[in-house]
Amino acid sequence: MAGAQNHRLALAVCQAGGLGALPAAMLSPDALQAELQALTAATPAPYNVNFFCHAQPTPNAEREAGWHKALAPYYSEFGLDASPMPGGPGRVPFGHDSADVLEAFRPAVVSFHFGLPAPDLLARVKSWGAFVLSSATTVAEARWLQAHGADAVIAQGLEAGGHRGMFLTDDLSTQMGTFALLPQIVQAVDVPVIAAGGVGTAQAVAAARQLGASGVQIGTAYLCSHEAGTSPLHRAALQSPAAQHTALTTLFSGRPARGIVNRLMRELGPLNEAAPAFPLATAAIAPLRAAAEAQGLSDFTPLWSGQNASSARSLSASDITREWVQAWLSASLHEGTGVGA
Amino acid sequence: MAGAQNHRLALAVCQAGGLGALPAAMLSPDALQAELQALTAATPAPYNVNFFCHAQPTPNAEREAGWHKALAPYYSEFGLDASPMPGGPGRVPFGHDSADVLEAFRPAVVSFHFGLPAPDLLARVKSWGAFVLSSATTVAEARWLQAHGADAVIAQGLEAGGHRGMFLTDDLSTQMGTFALLPQIVQAVDVPVIAAGGVGTAQAVAAARQLGASGVQIGTAYLCSHEAGTSPLHRAALQSPAAQHTALTTLFSGRPARGIVNRLMRELGPLNEAAPAFPLATAAIAPLRAAAEAQGLSDFTPLWSGQNASSARSLSASDITREWVQAWLSASLHEGTGVGA
Repeated sequence: MAGAQNHRLALAVCQAGGLGALPAAMLSPDALQAELQALTAATPAPYNVNFFCHAQPTPNAEREAGWHKALAPYYSEFGLDASPMPGGPGRVPFGHDSADVLEAFRPAVVSFHFGLPAPDLLARVKSWGAFVLSSATTVAEARWLQAHGADAVIAQGLEAGGHRGMFLTDDLSTQMGTFALLPQIVQAVDVPVIAAGGVGTAQAVAAARQLGASGVQIGTAYLCSHEAGTSPLHRAALQSPAAQHTALTTLFSGRPARGIVNRLMRELGPLNEAAPAFPLATAAIAPLRAAAEAQGLSDFTPLWSGQNASSARSLSASDITREWVQAWLSASLHEGTGVGA
Repeated sequence: MAGAQNHRLALAVCQAGGLGALPAAMLSPDALQAELQALTAATPAPYNVNFFCHAQPTPNAEREAGWHKALAPYYSEFGLDASPMPGGPGRVPFGHDSADVLEAFRPAVVSFHFGLPAPDLLARVKSWGAFVLSSATTVAEARWLQAHGADAVIAQGLEAGGHRGMFLTDDLSTQMGTFALLPQIVQAVDVPVIAAGGVGTAQAVAAARQLGASGVQIGTAYLCSHEAGTSPLHRAALQSPAAQHTALTTLFSGRPARGIVNRLMRELGPLNEAAPAFPLATAAIAPLRAAAEAQGLSDFTPLWSGQNASSARSLSASDITREWVQAWLSASLHEGTGVGA
């Protein structure tokens, strides 16, 4: 949810009895400090802070040149100066500067995407007793996370929107639907398992509990809530027929992430091999995105969405959360098949 | 399930209160007649007969030559004569000859894969009151099936093993996990929706009902049952760690189908474009498969499996079915979230 929300959405979720999450992957330490101050000033409830923890790639001039070449016709179309095209990283992994900020707030939960940070960083997070989560997209990743210190594992089914958390493989054929992934991870690990991917309805929350989840993580279904920072263009796409077709694409960052198919994905192919390593693909897209958005076009915007955008309703996130909490609790009262948390 | 079972599995399912299905896609009219005779002699219960209803492609000599070239090194390795490599179709679509056989048995349910047969053939099936099913892999396909006469739609999530039923598109990025596909199809059509894909455990049966399914269709979880015709090599693969990694592949038939990744899939890539149109890819693989299987190798065998092969237990199919029927009924007694059939 990085880029699509700030503390307001996390606050609304916390106030309704959920565990609100603050996405920090695109926040500088100063911005992180400001968001955490705003959140903690408004609620004493526990919350989660989410970070990416990828290894920064070595820039590869040849590969970046290929990427710039693939994008050059679009730069021409929008009358943008293509020399030099912007480069450099778009997202910074969790580091000691962020840990310095975090330490003062001692968040109850810290979650990671793309594995776990280096042992010294993870030890810092655990030093104040934080409960640590990370996403697994395969059974092997779930076992790895448990072995390396995750206190719970998020089973990210391939229905999920945004970046795939995969970190032990880059083979997309390993990615499983939630119906298959969730129960196999529940079987494989001893820590609690949180379901993600297609679970943003009351029915899906109950179904995830049936399949052994100890909780659910919901993204897409919050994107059109009043408190989300989702742009009007992104909201319009989520509520349009276009949202019926999402795909995993590497074009916007370099790693596969699920978004609504738009012009760039159609024309270059969602997994075009010209896209450089994560997160180096982002920078050269930014001017195109800005120019197109200024014309009201989302042709170059990452329209992150899971495979069920119909779950994204224009309601208060607190009301949505209360509905899901109720669905979860109701499911727990009716464990007729002997399944549950 | 074509090729992996005969009437014995269907019979065991029927006897336990399920709707057993006889896969007829690879049966000649004479073989179909024999299977139906055996099934109906053993039980008065209703059953389903399943057919493929693809359009036969025009053979393309150039494309087939490319395919033969891709396979030639394997022919050499096994000392097989590659001139000429076998060609011709591997599976015949539902036609009047099969309808002639079917008509005498008047099965209560007839299901199709890859859309629906031509109107005259569909009318013949409906003439004796058969309830007609077909698989949808997108919301658009579900709407199409309802509009063209399907009495219920099978929502085939991409967890499912074997052939994808997709027929309005060949773009694999349109394929959704069951958690996302099932509720959207339930929302989109008025006919009952049957869940398929990752639903082969008691918990998953209950979860599918939570998501609005009116029934479940289970394949993989029967493949190791006593009554299945699954080969020993296929059974061994399903019960090995290799089953953790399935992929959609076009190598064995020309259409994408999910199977356990084996040597051929690894070496050619599961979606190698050299594979000719369905079902023309099959014939040239057959001698390789036979030669490898004679050496105890499943390197060229289509090891169909869904994404949760751990659901495939070595039990009686009747016992398995009774467990699922119980899970379904229990779920119906506990519709705490207001969801159900």
